[in-house]
Formats: sequence, structure tokens, C-alpha cells
Amino acid sequence: MFHEKAVLPQGYSCVSKNCGLKADGAEDLSVIFSDTLATAAAVFTKNQVPGAPVIVGREVIKGQKLQALVINSKISNVGTGELGVKNARKMGRAVAIEFGCEAEHVLMSSTGVIAVQLPIEKIEQGIVGTKSEVKDDPMIAAKGIMTTDTHPKAYSMSVGDATVTLIAKGSGMIEPNMATMLAYAMTDAEIAADKLDEMLRIAVNKSFNMLSVDTDTSTSDTVVVMANGKAGKVDEDQFQQALNELCIQMTETMARDGEGATKLIRAEISGAVNYNEAKVYAKAMINSPLIKTMAFGADPNIGRILMALGKCFDNTFNLDTLKLSINDTLIYKDAGKVEYDEPALRKIISGDPVVFQIDLGLGEGEATAYGCDLTHGYIDENAAYYSS
Amino acid sequence: MFHEKAVLPQGYSCVSKNCGLKADGAEDLSVIFSDTLATAAAVFTKNQVPGAPVIVGREVIKGQKLQALVINSKISNVGTGELGVKNARKMGRAVAIEFGCEAEHVLMSSTGVIAVQLPIEKIEQGIVGTKSEVKDDPMIAAKGIMTTDTHPKAYSMSVGDATVTLIAKGSGMIEPNMATMLAYAMTDAEIAADKLDEMLRIAVNKSFNMLSVDTDTSTSDTVVVMANGKAGKVDEDQFQQALNELCIQMTETMARDGEGATKLIRAEISGAVNYNEAKVYAKAMINSPLIKTMAFGADPNIGRILMALGKCFDNTFNLDTLKLSINDTLIYKDAGKVEYDEPALRKIISGDPVVFQIDLGLGEGEATAYGCDLTHGYIDENAAYYSS
Repeated sequence: MFHEKAVLPQGYSCVSKNCGLKADGAEDLSVIFSDTLATAAAVFTKNQVPGAPVIVGREVIKGQKLQALVINSKISNVGTGELGVKNARKMGRAVAIEFGCEAEHVLMSSTGVIAVQLPIEKIEQGIVGTKSEVKDDPMIAAKGIMTTDTHPKAYSMSVGDATVTLIAKGSGMIEPNMATMLAYAMTDAEIAADKLDEMLRIAVNKSFNMLSVDTDTSTSDTVVVMANGKAGKVDEDQFQQALNELCIQMTETMARDGEGATKLIRAEISGAVNYNEAKVYAKAMINSPLIKTMAFGADPNIGRILMALGKCFDNTFNLDTLKLSINDTLIYKDAGKVEYDEPALRKIISGDPVVFQIDLGLGEGEATAYGCDLTHGYIDENAAYYSS
Repeated sequence: MFHEKAVLPQGYSCVSKNCGLKADGAEDLSVIFSDTLATAAAVFTKNQVPGAPVIVGREVIKGQKLQALVINSKISNVGTGELGVKNARKMGRAVAIEFGCEAEHVLMSSTGVIAVQLPIEKIEQGIVGTKSEVKDDPMIAAKGIMTTDTHPKAYSMSVGDATVTLIAKGSGMIEPNMATMLAYAMTDAEIAADKLDEMLRIAVNKSFNMLSVDTDTSTSDTVVVMANGKAGKVDEDQFQQALNELCIQMTETMARDGEGATKLIRAEISGAVNYNEAKVYAKAMINSPLIKTMAFGADPNIGRILMALGKCFDNTFNLDTLKLSINDTLIYKDAGKVEYDEPALRKIISGDPVVFQIDLGLGEGEATAYGCDLTHGYIDENAAYYSS
């Protein structure tokens, strides 16, 4: 169960401030610190133009230990060549000096404009003195890493005596016009690094990897988990379960706060011949502009659902075994429309979320994907001029 | 070169009328007829929920001969089971009886609402008497097959003594909220059916298969070519060239008339390691919502282009060899932004088309894809209520 209010696990603290990147004085620099070394795991974007922090982050995480995270917004340090990589390392070193830890235990993230160099001096100067300003409230970091997110995002759960907390930003717009997903999980549970890595990948595959706001994969996506061990060992199945739930909850929160979104769309696929096909169907549903606009318009349009499933050309499909429901109302089976109370269904799906329950009737494959509706807000946010 | 005004080749005629499917009296039924049997080829949607006319059409085209095409709008006859297939056959038979040809030489198409049965009697009655109403103007059929296209679409070219004419509808919205692409090419050139099929596939792969308005594949897409031989043999290379040009011209016209679109987007990829990778890059560009909204906003955003190329995870990519131009203005090379006259470029791309010229610098692979911008009009058209 989620804590009513997110808290930081034992030994963690954080700080956020403006270091001069954002002209309006809003927070643009955050540090999350563990007072002891934590085992750690991370996953990064698959985009072939990864940001410098992702390039450096992949090296850092090989050590499987982290003590601090440093995140700046406004400039993403992507497409910035060797100088960009050098600047990312400088950002980590500045935190290591300020907080008294090793640079190889600091992972950095940047989010914002692409193909612009970081004003690294501002960041280095900004980091000086932050150690004395840390607090134990995760909302400080959750707020500090926001860009055009409409609210800070943090959740906590308990696992035995330990706490696991996840903060994230993303799917909101920032000036460079690219959604960037950053998520940081912290726990005081004691978990070996390899196990932590395995658990993170399981959780991410069920959650963030099933999220799509607009099919466009950011160059900076990063998910990190740190475990400092202060609360001792915990039941690992329970921890995995908690991490899954936190990541799924955060995925839904991010989808709902997607660019211009007014609601969450969930595509729950069952009965596919296997997991991979279920995943393809689930993603096709939440990525279809015609499904997304129909959710916005609150229209239970069977034709669009058949289209979206049917365009998964390589999947196994049989119209005769297909069952479609929207928010638990059965609308299609036996290759034909089912009579249902359409005004009632329209009313339900004019709210949030819109849930598509799709049973292929072919096997045991199941997958759920998370998206949002496509609205005028998306166009407004993304058609604005910006010189990058 | 295109004729200034589209004409029908020798031996072809067409008719369009309202047969009672559309309540407002607009044309909903069209027939295109060749007074002699023509060799023919066709390609159909890959959607796994093909319409009944596509199911029947695949059978019909096996004979490699056609004499008539019949098309209705308003109801697509998709997801309608055995009755739908029966009704599609009835539509063909009615035309065969009226025009005095074989039912196996009539190909039918339907476009409109999904999962609703055709009122076949209205169509059968509507066909009676149409033979005496045919005209030799292709615009009659081009107009007759329109749904929410904003204008009829027809082009003609000469190849030696022969004419080849292409009419099409599509990418505009219709009530069921699904783009459907229908295109019919007619020629009086004499071309063997197997050759015609080969030439159609070549032309379609360069044109319609490189078109995307919104990534959503219709259940009814159909492209047909008929060759009645009245003008005798022609140079086949010249014919292929003409067919390619017609199909590409029509593809651009359809993209420009896409749902809510204000302009054409063309992604011209060169220097990819092979054709397949070039195609993946080209499609990724025109399908990216962030590229589409940036074209709408007339913003030369390098970050979004890097993102869209970088998310082609399985392609070969090297930032150092990449050159990016927009409408012939070089903006990125040697892994860095190039200085250019940004106000001038913004002015150019606030017009139509927006052309992305992307040289990967890796090999000989080339491909061009066609799309359109993403605007408020798309949301308006697709978020409207419709009960299907």
C-alpha cells in the first residue's frame, strides 16, 4: 500500500535550487544524497543519440554503487560531443567534492534543450554549499526535477522495515519540445546490486517500458534505483512487488500528466498467443492517434479498435475469438457488436481513465500498456516556436 | 508530364450518384467501366481485419482481368462477417448485370462506417440504369468516391499514344473516423497482367506505401490498375516511370489533404546503409508527432530530428557522418549545428511543403516518405462523437 505522503527512506536527503539556468528563478538543479554508499542499478534510453549524461551514466552504473544523483533541467546536454561528456563528468565531480563522496558514485541527468552546451560553471557554482541545505522531504527533489509537469510526482511504500520511494518527472513538455522521463527510486532495504538490477528491469518492463505519450523516445530517459541497506534485508518478493506497484503507479501518473492529456488510457490485453504479441497489441492501442482522439472524444468506436488490432500485421489474430470491453462494458464478441447501454458507457469514458479490455481468445499472453488522450493541448505545446 | 486536366483513357467511362446511403443527397455510389476487358492488378490493405470488399477483391484480382469498378461510401462493409462478403459479391453482380459484363470482372470497394451491414438493396437499385448515365470525365468518379476529402483527386499522363489516369480518395475523414485510401489507375495501354502487377507494386512501394497521415492502417485500402489495350503497346520503362510519377503525385496530394493537415511533409533519406534502413528512417520522421507538430509550428528543431532518427534502434547510425537540411538549408553536420539564416528558414517552412533532407553518410540507401503536419484540425475531426 502506498504511503499517504511520500517520505525519504533512512539515510537519504535532497536539495533543489536555481543555479541560473532558468531565467525565471525556478529550480533547475537538484541533488539526492545517501549518507552511505548504496548498491544501485539503472536503465537508460535506447535512443541512438543518447545524451552525455546517459553516456557517462552507463559507465558509472557498471560499478553498481551510487551515493548521489544530480539533475539539471533547461539544457539536456544531448548532441554535444566530447565537451558535453566532459561537462557531465564535471557535474558529477562537483557533487562528489561538495558531498564528500567519490565521483564514480555520482550519477547525473540533464533534461532540456538539445544540441546546446551546458553552462557548466553555473552548475558547479550552484552545487557549492548545497550539502548544508539538504532536507529529508522527497517532494523537494520531485519538484526540483519538474519541467512542464503540472505537479511533482513521488510515491512511497513499505517493505518490512524498509521504505521504497520513487520520484519522477516526465511526459510533460519542456522548451526543447521533447518528453523526457527521469525516475529515481531510493530504498533503505539491503539488496545486492545484481538482484537490484534484475528487479529494476522486471519492474520497468511492466511499467515505464509500457508507457507512451506520443511514440517519441527521448534521448535522456533514465531510471535509477539505489539501496543503502540501512533497514537491513527484506523479503525480496515483497520488494519486487512494491517496486512493480510503485513503477506502475508512477507510469499511470506520468501518462495522465502527458502533454496536453486529460486522461489515462490503459490497454489491457489478454488471451494473446504469447507475451510479445500481447505487448505489440497493447502498444498499438495506446499509440494509435485514432484511439487517443476517441478517448478524448469519449466515443466507444469499435471500428477504431478493430483497426488498431488489425494493423499488428505480424500478430496472430482471429475476429471470431475476440472480445472487446471498455471500462468493463462488453461491446464486441462472436465477430459482432454487442448491445449495450451506449449513453451510460459514453458517460463513463468521458471520465478518467479509459480502459480497453481486449481478450484475443487465443492463448495465455497478457500485457498492459499506458497512454493518454490526444488533445488540442498537445498541439499547442508542441507547435510553439522554439529555436534549439 | 501531367496533363493540365485529367482525362479518361480510351474506352473508359464513369458515373456517380446518390443511392440513398448518404442522407444529404451527396454521391455515395460510383462505377468506372471499360468497354472492353482490361488486364488488371491490385494491392490491398495488410490490416488483419480486412473489409469484405477486400476479401472478395483478392479473389477477383486472381483472374488478372477487370472490366468495372464499383465503389460506395458511407458504410465500409468491414467486420460484417459472411453476410458482408455476400453483400460485396451482390454489389459486383449488380454491376455485371447492368453493364453486361462478367461478375468475376468487377472489383468493389466500400468506405465508411465499420461493423455495420450494407443496405445492399439500395445499392442494387441504385446501380440499375447507371449504364445510360456514364460520362467520359474522370472527375465524376473522383468526386463520387470522396468522403471528407476537401477536393477530388485525379491526374493523367501520356505514355506514347496511351494515357494513364489515376483517381483516388483518402486521408480525409469520414464519419467512422478512419482514413481510407482508395486509388484506381486506368490506361488504354496494352500491358500483360503479370507485368502490370509488377509495375503496380513498384509504383506503390515508392508512393502510397510511403504515405502516412497518422500511422493508422485502414481496413479497406485498395489500389487497382486496369489496362484495356486500346492504344496498343507502349514503352514499358516509360509506362513504369509515368505510373510512378502519378502515384507519387497522388501520394503528395493525399498527404496535403490529410486530416486537418495544412502542409505536406517530405522526408528524403540518403546515405543509409541500405534501402530498408532508409525506409525506416523516412517513416520514423513523417510519423513522429513531434516532427509533425514542429512542421505545423514552422520550427527548425534539430533536437526533434535527432530524436526521431535516434529512436530507430535497429538502424545503423553515426552522428559524425550525419547531415541535416530543411528545404535545402543545411542546419547540422560534423555532429554540430551549422550557422544559418534562421528567420529565413522559418519563413520558408511556414509554407508548404516542409522537406527534411537527411544524409546519413553511411551508404547508398535512399527512400522518401510523405506525411503531413499534425494540427488542431486533426483533433477536431477525430475527437467528435460517432456511434459505430
